[in-house]
Order: sequence, then structure tokens, then C-alpha cells
Amino acid sequence: MEHIEHLGIAVRDLNASIPTYEKLLGVPCYKREEVPSEGVLTAFFQTSINKIELLQATREDSAIGKFIVSRGEGLHHVAFSVKDIHAEMERLRSEGFRLLNEHAKPGADNKLICFVHPKDAGGVLIELCQER
Amino acid sequence: MEHIEHLGIAVRDLNASIPTYEKLLGVPCYKREEVPSEGVLTAFFQTSINKIELLQATREDSAIGKFIVSRGEGLHHVAFSVKDIHAEMERLRSEGFRLLNEHAKPGADNKLICFVHPKDAGGVLIELCQER
Repeated sequence: MEHIEHLGIAVRDLNASIPTYEKLLGVPCYKREEVPSEGVLTAFFQTSINKIELLQATREDSAIGKFIVSRGEGLHHVAFSVKDIHAEMERLRSEGFRLLNEHAKPGADNKLICFVHPKDAGGVLIELCQER
Repeated sequence: MEHIEHLGIAVRDLNASIPTYEKLLGVPCYKREEVPSEGVLTAFFQTSINKIELLQATREDSAIGKFIVSRGEGLHHVAFSVKDIHAEMERLRSEGFRLLNEHAKPGADNKLICFVHPKDAGGVLIELCQER
């Protein structure tokens, strides 16, 4: 895998969190995007090569909605950039990792994505992320 | 702030987790280091410009020991590279962020570090990190 494409952070209220992260990181939010299929509103910040993605649930039964109920706000997932997501999925499967997606799917920010089962990755939700 | 210097992940057993992360990330662990002042054993991996730091507690009353008991294994903190940690600490204080360290202190991997209070950063433990 290559660099950390982005770090996903679950928040309750994007409108409250965006100014906080702008002050914290010292950079402006450069994009907001809704991903209806995932039930989330997202906001992106860029610090050098890496991005921070804030995620607010639009449905209680979405992954972020459930995370906020069970764990509160905080670090949710880490996405690594990969050149060829299909090859990387095959490599991980052959190493014994379970993937949460049978096929790569469209994600926010014009990406093809796939998640690795957190039980196979020490409790960390890892996303593979390829530019479309 | 600049790029993500490293992402800290709490694990129960470094010897079990290192081979998992080597397979997952596709890169070898390049360094192990004990930080007695923090009560942790660490192991580092590099993916492009970013590092992954696995952390195992050596004492139950250390920050990582308490985290493992309350939340289990998983994402623990994110460290951003800064050029001048003292200036960045001043900037954050003036923006109203509380810092967990009055002064920058030595951390693993030959760094000067300081943590931001997670209650001021949406539940995320953020570390500032300057090369010594």
C-alpha cells in the first residue's frame, strides 16, 4: 500500500466540526460531498499529501450512525492509496484477509474503494482507495 | 500542520500484530523501540511518506494500557508533522485548544511531541510531532 489517502473521523455535526478542524489543522475545508449510498455527509481537508475526511451520518442505521451511538465521535477508518485496487484485493485475500466488499465500489471524492474486515486488522477499519 | 507523520494503533501483543501488519501493508516493520516514560513498546512501518506505529502497553496504568481495557485494539492517535512545535503550540493555545503537555517532550522515533486535548478535537487524540 502507498500513502494514507485519508483518515476518516466520525462527527455528530459537520457544521460544528468544520470550523474546529479548520482552526486545528490550519487549512480550510476544500470540499463537502454527500454519499447517499453510505448515508453520510463528508467534508475534506488537505494537509500536504494526506486528507482528513469528517463524516456525519444522515441515517441512524448507517455505519457512521451506528459508530456514533456505540463509540461517540472519533477516529473511524484509515484509507490507503493503492494503484490497482483489484490486484490489492486479490493480494489481501491470498494473505487470508477478509474483505467487507466482494467488489470495489464507488466512494466519496471520485474513488474506487474496498474495506478490510477490522477483525483481521487488529480492530482497525482499513479502506483501500484508488483514483477512478 | 503538514502531513500525517504517523498513525498510532493500540495492540495487545506486538509480536502477534507485527506479522499481520507486514502482510496487510505489504512492507516490513523497520524499527522497534521501547519508550519507558510512556510505558509502551512500539513498532514502525512506513507507507510512502506516512508511518504506522503499533503500540503495546508495558504497564496497565499507561495510556495505551487503559485504552486497551476500555476500548480494545484499534486506532489510538494521529500525529501531524510540524516544522516548529513551539509556534504550533502557541497558535493552538491562542485558538482556544487545550494541550495535554505544558511543554513539548521527547517521544519515540527521535521526535519532540505534544498532544491536543481530545475533547477539543472531536474525540480525536492529536499529536504534534517535530523532528529533533
